[in-house]
Amino acid sequence: MNLMLFEPGELDAPLPRDDVRARHIVGVLRLGVGARIDAGVIDGVVGIATLTDVGASTLRLSFEPGLEPPPLPDITLVVGLPRPPTARDVLRDGTTLGVRAIHFVTPQLGDPNYATSSLWKTSEWRKQLIQGAGQASCTRLPEVTWGRRLSTVLAASSTAERIALHNDEAATPLARWRRPAGGASVLVAIGPERGWGPRDLQALDEGGCTLWHLGPRVLRVELAMAAALTLVHAEVARNAPT
Amino acid sequence: MNLMLFEPGELDAPLPRDDVRARHIVGVLRLGVGARIDAGVIDGVVGIATLTDVGASTLRLSFEPGLEPPPLPDITLVVGLPRPPTARDVLRDGTTLGVRAIHFVTPQLGDPNYATSSLWKTSEWRKQLIQGAGQASCTRLPEVTWGRRLSTVLAASSTAERIALHNDEAATPLARWRRPAGGASVLVAIGPERGWGPRDLQALDEGGCTLWHLGPRVLRVELAMAAALTLVHAEVARNAPT
Repeated sequence: MNLMLFEPGELDAPLPRDDVRARHIVGVLRLGVGARIDAGVIDGVVGIATLTDVGASTLRLSFEPGLEPPPLPDITLVVGLPRPPTARDVLRDGTTLGVRAIHFVTPQLGDPNYATSSLWKTSEWRKQLIQGAGQASCTRLPEVTWGRRLSTVLAASSTAERIALHNDEAATPLARWRRPAGGASVLVAIGPERGWGPRDLQALDEGGCTLWHLGPRVLRVELAMAAALTLVHAEVARNAPT
Repeated sequence: MNLMLFEPGELDAPLPRDDVRARHIVGVLRLGVGARIDAGVIDGVVGIATLTDVGASTLRLSFEPGLEPPPLPDITLVVGLPRPPTARDVLRDGTTLGVRAIHFVTPQLGDPNYATSSLWKTSEWRKQLIQGAGQASCTRLPEVTWGRRLSTVLAASSTAERIALHNDEAATPLARWRRPAGGASVLVAIGPERGWGPRDLQALDEGGCTLWHLGPRVLRVELAMAAALTLVHAEVARNAPT
Protein backbone atom coordinates (compact mmCIF):
# COMPACT_ATOMS: atom_id res chain seq x y z
CA MET A 1 0.00 0.00 0.00
CA ASN A 2 1.26 3.49 -0.78
CA LEU A 3 -0.85 5.30 1.86
CA MET A 4 -1.90 3.67 5.14
CA LEU A 5 -5.50 4.63 5.85
CA PHE A 6 -7.19 5.00 9.24
CA GLU A 7 -10.76 5.67 10.31
CA PRO A 8 -11.31 9.10 11.93
CA GLY A 9 -10.09 8.92 15.56
CA GLU A 10 -8.11 5.72 15.08
CA LEU A 11 -4.77 7.54 14.90
CA ASP A 12 -5.27 9.00 18.40
CA ALA A 13 -5.70 5.57 19.99
CA PRO A 14 -3.26 2.68 20.49
CA LEU A 15 -3.23 0.35 17.46
CA PRO A 16 -3.59 -3.33 18.45
CA ARG A 17 -0.62 -5.45 17.33
CA ASP A 18 -2.99 -7.85 15.55
CA ASP A 19 -4.46 -5.05 13.41
CA VAL A 20 -3.58 -5.60 9.73
CA ARG A 21 -1.77 -2.25 9.57
CA ALA A 22 0.22 -2.94 12.75
CA ARG A 23 1.25 -6.30 11.29
CA HIS A 24 2.32 -4.54 8.10
CA ILE A 25 4.36 -1.92 9.99
CA VAL A 26 6.15 -4.43 12.22
CA GLY A 27 6.07 -7.67 10.24
CA VAL A 28 6.44 -6.57 6.62
CA LEU A 29 8.06 -3.12 6.73
CA ARG A 30 10.03 -4.02 9.92
CA LEU A 31 9.87 -0.42 11.16
CA GLY A 32 10.98 0.73 14.60
CA VAL A 33 10.27 3.73 16.85
CA GLY A 34 10.84 6.99 14.98
CA ALA A 35 9.89 5.60 11.55
CA ARG A 36 7.66 7.84 9.42
CA ILE A 37 4.77 6.38 7.43
CA ASP A 38 2.62 8.01 4.73
CA ALA A 39 -0.82 7.88 6.34
CA GLY A 40 -4.26 9.36 5.87
CA VAL A 41 -7.66 9.64 7.50
CA ILE A 42 -10.44 8.06 5.43
CA ASP A 43 -12.27 10.86 3.57
CA GLY A 44 -9.91 13.32 5.29
CA VAL A 45 -6.33 14.60 5.18
CA VAL A 46 -3.10 12.93 4.12
CA GLY A 47 -0.15 13.25 6.51
CA ILE A 48 2.78 11.56 8.20
CA ALA A 49 2.38 9.07 11.04
CA THR A 50 5.46 8.64 13.23
CA LEU A 51 5.82 5.37 15.12
CA THR A 52 6.30 6.49 18.77
CA ASP A 53 5.96 3.21 20.66
CA VAL A 54 6.05 -0.53 19.91
CA GLY A 55 4.44 -2.28 22.89
CA ALA A 56 3.69 -5.94 23.50
CA SER A 57 0.02 -5.57 22.53
CA THR A 58 -0.23 -2.16 20.81
CA LEU A 59 1.62 0.36 18.64
CA ARG A 60 1.41 4.12 19.11
CA LEU A 61 1.49 6.55 16.18
CA SER A 62 1.71 10.34 16.23
CA PHE A 63 -0.04 11.89 13.20
CA GLU A 64 1.05 15.13 11.54
CA PRO A 65 -1.90 16.13 9.33
CA GLY A 66 -1.19 17.60 5.90
CA LEU A 67 -3.43 18.50 2.97
CA GLU A 68 -6.77 17.12 1.82
CA PRO A 69 -6.44 15.22 -1.47
CA PRO A 70 -8.24 16.63 -4.53
CA PRO A 71 -11.90 15.60 -5.00
CA LEU A 72 -12.57 12.32 -6.82
CA PRO A 73 -13.28 12.61 -10.57
CA ASP A 74 -17.02 13.16 -11.18
CA ILE A 75 -17.44 9.69 -12.68
CA THR A 76 -20.13 7.23 -11.61
CA LEU A 77 -19.59 3.54 -12.32
CA VAL A 78 -22.61 1.26 -12.80
CA VAL A 79 -21.85 -2.48 -12.96
CA GLY A 80 -24.17 -5.45 -13.44
CA LEU A 81 -23.68 -7.34 -10.17
CA PRO A 82 -20.92 -9.87 -10.97
CA ARG A 83 -19.80 -12.93 -9.02
CA PRO A 84 -18.08 -11.93 -5.76
CA PRO A 85 -14.40 -12.35 -6.83
CA THR A 86 -15.06 -10.03 -9.78
CA ALA A 87 -16.97 -7.59 -7.55
CA ARG A 88 -13.96 -7.51 -5.20
CA ASP A 89 -11.65 -6.52 -8.07
CA VAL A 90 -14.13 -3.89 -9.32
CA LEU A 91 -14.42 -2.36 -5.82
CA ARG A 92 -10.64 -2.24 -5.32
CA ASP A 93 -9.52 -1.30 -8.83
CA GLY A 94 -12.39 1.12 -9.49
CA THR A 95 -11.40 2.94 -6.31
CA THR A 96 -7.73 2.97 -7.34
CA LEU A 97 -8.55 4.35 -10.79
CA GLY A 98 -10.79 7.02 -9.20
CA VAL A 99 -14.58 7.26 -9.34
CA ARG A 100 -17.08 9.09 -7.15
CA ALA A 101 -19.60 6.24 -6.91
CA ILE A 102 -19.97 2.55 -7.79
CA HIS A 103 -23.49 1.14 -8.12
CA PHE A 104 -23.87 -2.62 -8.54
CA VAL A 105 -27.25 -3.19 -10.18
CA THR A 106 -29.24 -6.41 -10.63
CA PRO A 107 -29.07 -7.15 -14.36
CA GLN A 108 -31.46 -9.30 -16.38
CA LEU A 109 -28.85 -12.03 -16.96
CA GLY A 110 -27.38 -11.97 -13.45
CA ASP A 111 -27.44 -14.48 -10.61
CA PRO A 112 -29.42 -13.20 -7.58
CA ASN A 113 -27.26 -15.37 -5.30
CA TYR A 114 -24.32 -13.05 -5.91
CA ALA A 115 -25.99 -10.45 -3.65
CA THR A 116 -26.04 -12.82 -0.68
CA SER A 117 -22.23 -13.25 -0.61
CA SER A 118 -20.33 -12.46 2.59
CA LEU A 119 -18.67 -9.71 0.53
CA TRP A 120 -21.90 -7.71 0.90
CA LYS A 121 -23.08 -9.03 4.27
CA THR A 122 -19.89 -8.06 6.12
CA SER A 123 -17.66 -5.01 5.83
CA GLU A 124 -15.54 -6.90 3.31
CA TRP A 125 -16.73 -4.67 0.43
CA ARG A 126 -15.49 -1.57 2.24
CA LYS A 127 -12.09 -3.15 2.94
CA GLN A 128 -11.63 -3.43 -0.84
CA LEU A 129 -12.27 0.31 -1.18
CA ILE A 130 -9.72 1.10 1.52
CA GLN A 131 -7.15 -1.14 -0.19
CA GLY A 132 -7.82 0.51 -3.55
CA ALA A 133 -7.62 4.04 -2.14
CA GLY A 134 -4.38 3.28 -0.22
CA GLN A 135 -2.86 2.04 -3.50
CA ALA A 136 -3.79 5.34 -5.19
CA SER A 137 -2.42 7.39 -2.23
CA CYS A 138 -5.90 8.88 -1.81
CA THR A 139 -8.07 9.05 1.32
CA ARG A 140 -11.38 9.36 -0.50
CA LEU A 141 -13.66 6.36 -0.94
CA PRO A 142 -16.42 6.20 -3.55
CA GLU A 143 -20.05 5.86 -2.51
CA VAL A 144 -21.14 2.23 -3.07
CA THR A 145 -24.63 0.74 -3.43
CA TRP A 146 -25.79 -2.69 -4.54
CA GLY A 147 -28.97 -4.58 -5.30
CA ARG A 148 -30.98 -1.77 -6.95
CA ARG A 149 -32.45 -2.00 -10.44
CA LEU A 150 -30.57 -0.47 -13.37
CA SER A 151 -33.56 1.80 -14.19
CA THR A 152 -33.74 3.01 -10.57
CA VAL A 153 -30.04 3.91 -10.48
CA LEU A 154 -30.23 5.73 -13.83
CA ALA A 155 -33.37 7.66 -12.75
CA ALA A 156 -31.72 8.70 -9.46
CA SER A 157 -28.42 9.80 -11.05
CA SER A 158 -27.70 13.44 -11.86
CA THR A 159 -24.86 12.63 -14.30
CA ALA A 160 -24.95 14.53 -17.58
CA GLU A 161 -23.07 12.16 -19.91
CA ARG A 162 -24.00 8.48 -19.92
CA ILE A 163 -21.92 5.73 -21.52
CA ALA A 164 -22.89 2.05 -21.63
CA LEU A 165 -20.42 -0.58 -22.82
CA HIS A 166 -21.95 -3.08 -25.22
CA ASN A 167 -20.24 -5.49 -27.64
CA ASP A 168 -22.48 -4.78 -30.57
CA GLU A 169 -22.29 -3.48 -34.10
CA ALA A 170 -24.57 -0.59 -33.13
CA ALA A 171 -21.94 0.69 -30.67
CA THR A 172 -19.09 3.18 -31.34
CA PRO A 173 -15.43 2.69 -30.22
CA LEU A 174 -15.16 4.31 -26.77
CA ALA A 175 -11.79 5.80 -27.77
CA ARG A 176 -13.82 8.17 -30.00
CA TRP A 177 -16.00 9.45 -27.14
CA ARG A 178 -15.66 13.20 -26.59
CA ARG A 179 -16.98 14.93 -23.48
CA PRO A 180 -18.99 18.08 -24.17
CA ALA A 181 -17.22 21.26 -23.04
CA GLY A 182 -18.06 22.48 -19.55
CA GLY A 183 -16.83 19.57 -17.46
CA ALA A 184 -19.97 17.43 -17.49
CA SER A 185 -20.23 14.54 -15.00
CA VAL A 186 -20.02 11.07 -16.54
CA LEU A 187 -21.72 7.74 -15.88
CA VAL A 188 -20.15 4.52 -17.21
CA ALA A 189 -22.31 1.37 -17.23
CA ILE A 190 -20.71 -2.08 -17.64
CA GLY A 191 -22.76 -5.25 -18.07
CA PRO A 192 -22.34 -8.45 -16.07
CA GLU A 193 -20.32 -11.47 -17.34
CA ARG A 194 -23.17 -12.52 -19.65
CA GLY A 195 -23.75 -9.01 -21.00
CA TRP A 196 -26.81 -6.76 -20.97
CA GLY A 197 -30.18 -8.43 -21.64
CA PRO A 198 -32.92 -6.88 -23.79
CA ARG A 199 -34.65 -5.37 -20.73
CA ASP A 200 -31.33 -3.86 -19.58
CA LEU A 201 -30.75 -2.35 -23.04
CA GLN A 202 -34.21 -0.77 -22.89
CA ALA A 203 -33.48 0.65 -19.42
CA LEU A 204 -30.13 2.01 -20.66
CA ASP A 205 -31.83 3.66 -23.63
CA GLU A 206 -34.63 5.15 -21.52
CA GLY A 207 -32.00 6.24 -18.96
CA GLY A 208 -30.17 8.33 -21.57
CA CYS A 209 -27.18 6.03 -22.13
CA THR A 210 -25.46 5.70 -25.51
CA LEU A 211 -23.69 2.46 -26.52
CA TRP A 212 -19.90 2.17 -26.90
CA HIS A 213 -17.52 -0.75 -27.37
CA LEU A 214 -13.90 -1.52 -26.52
CA GLY A 215 -12.92 -3.26 -29.75
CA PRO A 216 -13.30 -6.81 -31.08
CA ARG A 217 -11.46 -8.51 -28.21
CA VAL A 218 -13.99 -9.33 -25.47
CA LEU A 219 -12.67 -8.30 -22.03
CA ARG A 220 -13.55 -9.68 -18.61
CA VAL A 221 -15.67 -7.27 -16.52
CA GLU A 222 -12.68 -6.10 -14.44
CA LEU A 223 -10.58 -5.47 -17.52
CA ALA A 224 -13.44 -3.73 -19.36
CA MET A 225 -13.81 -1.45 -16.34
CA ALA A 226 -10.09 -0.61 -16.32
CA ALA A 227 -10.08 0.07 -20.07
CA ALA A 228 -13.27 2.18 -19.97
CA LEU A 229 -12.19 4.27 -16.97
CA THR A 230 -8.77 4.81 -18.57
CA LEU A 231 -10.33 6.20 -21.76
CA VAL A 232 -12.90 8.31 -19.86
CA HIS A 233 -10.22 9.72 -17.52
CA ALA A 234 -8.02 10.57 -20.51
CA GLU A 235 -10.87 12.43 -22.23
CA VAL A 236 -11.93 14.20 -19.00
CA ALA A 237 -8.30 15.34 -18.49
CA ARG A 238 -8.08 16.45 -22.13
CA ASN A 239 -11.09 18.77 -22.00
CA ALA A 240 -10.97 19.79 -18.31
CA PRO A 241 -12.27 23.36 -17.76
CA THR A 242 -9.27 25.66 -17.32
CA MET B 1 -14.31 -18.54 -22.02
CA ASN B 2 -15.59 -17.17 -25.32
CA LEU B 3 -13.50 -19.43 -27.57
CA MET B 4 -12.40 -22.93 -26.57
CA LEU B 5 -8.79 -23.43 -27.64
CA PHE B 6 -7.09 -26.67 -28.62
CA GLU B 7 -3.51 -27.58 -29.51
CA PRO B 8 -2.96 -28.54 -33.18
CA GLY B 9 -4.16 -32.15 -33.65
CA GLU B 10 -6.10 -32.29 -30.38
CA LEU B 11 -9.47 -31.84 -32.12
CA ASP B 12 -8.95 -35.01 -34.17
CA ALA B 13 -8.46 -37.19 -31.08
CA PRO B 14 -10.88 -38.21 -28.30
CA LEU B 15 -10.88 -35.63 -25.48
CA PRO B 16 -10.48 -37.25 -22.04
CA ARG B 17 -13.43 -36.54 -19.73
CA ASP B 18 -11.06 -35.22 -17.07
CA ASP B 19 -9.65 -32.58 -19.45
CA VAL B 20 -10.55 -29.07 -18.25
CA ARG B 21 -12.42 -28.35 -21.53
CA ALA B 22 -14.37 -31.62 -21.38
CA ARG B 23 -15.38 -30.79 -17.81
CA HIS B 24 -16.49 -27.34 -18.96
CA ILE B 25 -18.52 -28.77 -21.86
CA VAL B 26 -20.27 -31.43 -19.77
CA GLY B 27 -20.18 -30.05 -16.23
CA VAL B 28 -20.61 -26.28 -16.68
CA LEU B 29 -22.26 -25.81 -20.08
CA ARG B 30 -24.20 -29.12 -19.73
CA LEU B 31 -24.03 -29.71 -23.49
CA GLY B 32 -25.12 -32.91 -25.22
CA VAL B 33 -24.43 -34.59 -28.57
CA GLY B 34 -25.06 -32.15 -31.45
CA ALA B 35 -24.15 -29.02 -29.48
CA ARG B 36 -21.95 -26.53 -31.34
CA ILE B 37 -19.07 -24.78 -29.58
CA ASP B 38 -16.97 -21.82 -30.72
CA ALA B 39 -13.51 -23.40 -30.90
CA GLY B 40 -10.09 -22.62 -32.30
CA VAL B 41 -6.67 -24.13 -32.89
CA ILE B 42 -3.89 -22.36 -31.01
CA ASP B 43 -2.10 -20.02 -33.44
CA GLY B 44 -4.49 -21.30 -36.15
CA VAL B 45 -8.06 -21.00 -37.36
CA VAL B 46 -11.29 -20.27 -35.51
CA GLY B 47 -14.23 -22.61 -36.21
CA ILE B 48 -17.12 -24.60 -34.83
CA ALA B 49 -16.68 -27.84 -32.88
CA THR B 50 -19.72 -30.11 -32.81
CA LEU B 51 -20.02 -32.55 -29.93
CA THR B 52 -20.48 -35.95 -31.66
CA ASP B 53 -20.10 -38.37 -28.77
CA VAL B 54 -20.13 -38.30 -24.96
CA GLY B 55 -18.50 -41.51 -23.78
CA ALA B 56 -17.67 -42.75 -20.30
CA SER B 57 -14.02 -41.69 -20.52
CA THR B 58 -13.82 -39.40 -23.58
CA LEU B 59 -15.73 -36.85 -25.66
CA ARG B 60 -15.58 -36.65 -29.44
CA LEU B 61 -15.69 -33.35 -31.31
CA SER B 62 -15.97 -32.71 -35.04
CA PHE B 63 -14.26 -29.46 -36.07
CA GLU B 64 -15.39 -27.26 -38.96
CA PRO B 65 -12.48 -24.87 -39.57
CA GLY B 66 -13.23 -21.23 -40.41
CA LEU B 67 -11.02 -18.16 -40.78
CA GLU B 68 -7.69 -17.22 -39.26
CA PRO B 69 -8.04 -14.35 -36.79
CA PRO B 70 -6.26 -11.07 -37.67
CA PRO B 71 -2.61 -10.77 -36.59
CA LEU B 72 -1.91 -9.54 -33.05
CA PRO B 73 -1.24 -5.80 -32.69
CA ASP B 74 2.49 -5.07 -33.15
CA ILE B 75 2.92 -4.18 -29.47
CA THR B 76 5.65 -5.64 -27.26
CA LEU B 77 5.15 -5.59 -23.49
CA VAL B 78 8.19 -5.50 -21.19
CA VAL B 79 7.46 -6.00 -17.48
CA GLY B 80 9.80 -6.02 -14.50
CA LEU B 81 9.38 -9.59 -13.20
CA PRO B 82 6.63 -9.28 -10.55
CA ARG B 83 5.55 -11.75 -7.87
CA PRO B 84 3.86 -14.80 -9.42
CA PRO B 85 0.17 -13.85 -8.79
CA THR B 86 0.78 -10.54 -10.56
CA ALA B 87 2.68 -12.27 -13.37
CA ARG B 88 -0.32 -14.61 -13.83
CA ASP B 89 -2.66 -11.63 -14.28
CA VAL B 90 -0.21 -9.93 -16.67
CA LEU B 91 0.08 -13.09 -18.80
CA ARG B 92 -3.69 -13.61 -18.98
CA ASP B 93 -4.85 -9.98 -19.27
CA GLY B 94 -2.00 -8.88 -21.54
CA THR B 95 -2.98 -11.71 -23.90
CA THR B 96 -6.66 -10.73 -23.73
CA LEU B 97 -5.89 -7.08 -24.47
CA GLY B 98 -3.67 -8.15 -27.39
CA VAL B 99 0.13 -7.93 -27.64
CA ARG B 100 2.63 -9.74 -29.86
CA ALA B 101 5.18 -10.45 -27.10
CA ILE B 102 5.58 -10.22 -23.33
CA HIS B 103 9.11 -10.11 -21.90
CA PHE B 104 9.52 -10.35 -18.13
CA VAL B 105 12.91 -8.79 -17.31
CA THR B 106 14.91 -8.92 -14.07
CA PRO B 107 14.73 -5.38 -12.69
CA GLN B 108 17.12 -3.73 -10.24
CA LEU B 109 14.53 -3.67 -7.42
CA GLY B 110 13.08 -7.13 -8.08
CA ASP B 111 13.20 -10.35 -6.11
CA PRO B 112 15.21 -13.08 -7.93
CA ASN B 113 13.07 -15.74 -6.17
CA TYR B 114 10.11 -14.77 -8.33
CA ALA B 115 11.78 -16.50 -11.30
CA THR B 116 11.88 -19.85 -9.48
CA SER B 117 8.06 -20.03 -9.06
CA SER B 118 6.18 -23.07 -10.37
CA LEU B 119 4.48 -20.58 -12.71
CA TRP B 120 7.69 -20.55 -14.77
CA LYS B 121 8.93 -24.10 -14.05
CA THR B 122 5.73 -25.79 -15.31
CA SER B 123 3.46 -24.98 -18.26
CA GLU B 124 1.32 -22.85 -15.92
CA TRP B 125 2.49 -19.62 -17.62
CA ARG B 126 1.21 -20.88 -20.99
CA LYS B 127 -2.16 -21.87 -19.52
CA GLN B 128 -2.64 -18.22 -18.58
CA LEU B 129 -2.04 -17.21 -22.22
CA ILE B 130 -4.59 -19.76 -23.45
CA GLN B 131 -7.15 -18.49 -20.93
CA GLY B 132 -6.54 -14.89 -21.95
CA ALA B 133 -6.75 -15.66 -25.68
CA GLY B 134 -9.97 -17.69 -25.25
CA GLN B 135 -11.52 -14.72 -23.43
CA ALA B 136 -10.62 -12.45 -26.38
CA SER B 137 -11.97 -15.03 -28.91
CA CYS B 138 -8.52 -15.15 -30.49
CA THR B 139 -6.32 -18.17 -31.23
CA ARG B 140 -3.04 -16.28 -31.24
CA LEU B 141 -0.71 -16.38 -28.22
CA PRO B 142 2.03 -13.81 -27.64
CA GLU B 143 5.66 -14.86 -27.51
CA VAL B 144 6.79 -14.92 -23.85
CA THR B 145 10.28 -14.80 -22.35
CA TRP B 146 11.48 -14.27 -18.77
CA GLY B 147 14.68 -13.81 -16.81
CA ARG B 148 16.63 -11.69 -19.30
CA ARG B 149 18.08 -8.27 -18.48
CA LEU B 150 16.18 -5.15 -19.46
CA SER B 151 19.12 -3.90 -21.56
CA THR B 152 19.31 -7.26 -23.39
CA VAL B 153 15.61 -7.22 -24.27
CA LEU B 154 15.76 -3.62 -25.47
CA ALA B 155 18.87 -4.29 -27.57
CA ALA B 156 17.24 -7.37 -29.17
CA SER B 157 13.93 -5.65 -29.96
CA SER B 158 13.17 -4.21 -33.38
CA THR B 159 10.31 -1.97 -32.13
CA ALA B 160 10.37 1.58 -33.43
CA GLU B 161 8.48 3.43 -30.67
CA ARG B 162 9.46 2.80 -27.03
CA ILE B 163 7.38 3.88 -24.06
CA ALA B 164 8.39 3.33 -20.42
CA LEU B 165 5.94 4.02 -17.60
CA HIS B 166 7.46 5.97 -14.73
CA ASN B 167 5.76 7.90 -11.92
CA ASP B 168 7.96 10.94 -12.11
CA GLU B 169 7.75 14.65 -12.76
CA ALA B 170 9.99 14.20 -15.81
CA ALA B 171 7.35 11.99 -17.47
CA THR B 172 4.48 13.04 -19.77
CA PRO B 173 0.84 11.82 -19.47
CA LEU B 174 0.57 8.70 -21.66
CA ALA B 175 -2.82 9.93 -22.94
CA ARG B 176 -0.83 12.57 -24.88
CA TRP B 177 1.37 10.01 -26.66
CA ARG B 178 1.01 10.11 -30.45
CA ARG B 179 2.32 7.39 -32.71
CA PRO B 180 4.30 8.63 -35.71
CA ALA B 181 2.53 8.08 -39.03
CA GLY B 182 3.37 4.85 -40.86
CA GLY B 183 2.21 2.28 -38.33
CA ALA B 184 5.36 1.95 -36.26
CA SER B 185 5.65 -1.00 -33.85
CA VAL B 186 5.46 -0.10 -30.17
CA LEU B 187 7.21 -1.33 -27.03
CA VAL B 188 5.66 -0.60 -23.61
CA ALA B 189 7.85 -1.12 -20.51
CA ILE B 190 6.28 -1.33 -17.04
CA GLY B 191 8.35 -1.44 -13.86
CA PRO B 192 7.99 -3.98 -11.04
CA GLU B 193 6.00 -3.28 -7.84
CA ARG B 194 8.83 -1.15 -6.40
CA GLY B 195 9.36 0.77 -9.65
CA TRP B 196 12.39 1.17 -11.89
CA GLY B 197 15.76 1.58 -10.15
CA PRO B 198 18.48 4.01 -11.33
CA ARG B 199 20.22 1.27 -13.36
CA ASP B 200 16.90 0.37 -15.03
CA LEU B 201 16.28 4.03 -15.90
CA GLN B 202 19.71 4.20 -17.52
CA ALA B 203 18.98 1.03 -19.52
CA LEU B 204 15.63 2.46 -20.62
CA ASP B 205 17.29 5.69 -21.72
CA GLU B 206 20.09 3.90 -23.58
CA GLY B 207 17.47 1.56 -25.09
CA GLY B 208 15.59 4.48 -26.67
CA CYS B 209 12.61 4.59 -24.28
CA THR B 210 10.88 7.83 -23.35
CA LEU B 211 9.15 8.24 -19.96
CA TRP B 212 5.36 8.51 -19.58
CA HIS B 213 3.00 8.45 -16.60
CA LEU B 214 -0.61 7.42 -15.97
CA GLY B 215 -1.59 10.29 -13.67
CA PRO B 216 -1.21 10.99 -9.96
CA ARG B 217 -3.02 7.84 -8.78
CA VAL B 218 -0.45 5.03 -8.46
CA LEU B 219 -1.74 1.82 -10.08
CA ARG B 220 -0.80 -1.79 -9.34
CA VAL B 221 1.31 -3.40 -12.09
CA GLU B 222 -1.69 -5.29 -13.58
CA LEU B 223 -3.83 -2.16 -13.65
CA ALA B 224 -1.00 -0.02 -15.06
CA MET B 225 -0.62 -2.59 -17.83
CA ALA B 226 -4.35 -2.50 -18.64
CA ALA B 227 -4.40 1.31 -18.65
CA ALA B 228 -1.23 1.62 -20.75
CA LEU B 229 -2.30 -0.97 -23.33
CA THR B 230 -5.74 0.66 -23.57
CA LEU B 231 -4.21 4.06 -24.38
CA VAL B 232 -1.66 2.60 -26.81
CA HIS B 233 -4.33 0.52 -28.60
CA ALA B 234 -6.58 3.60 -28.88
CA GLU B 235 -3.76 5.63 -30.41
CA VAL B 236 -2.69 2.79 -32.74
CA ALA B 237 -6.32 2.46 -33.93
CA ARG B 238 -6.57 6.24 -34.37
CA ASN B 239 -3.58 6.52 -36.70
CA ALA B 240 -3.68 3.10 -38.35
CA PRO B 241 -2.40 3.23 -41.96
CA THR B 242 -5.42 3.16 -44.31
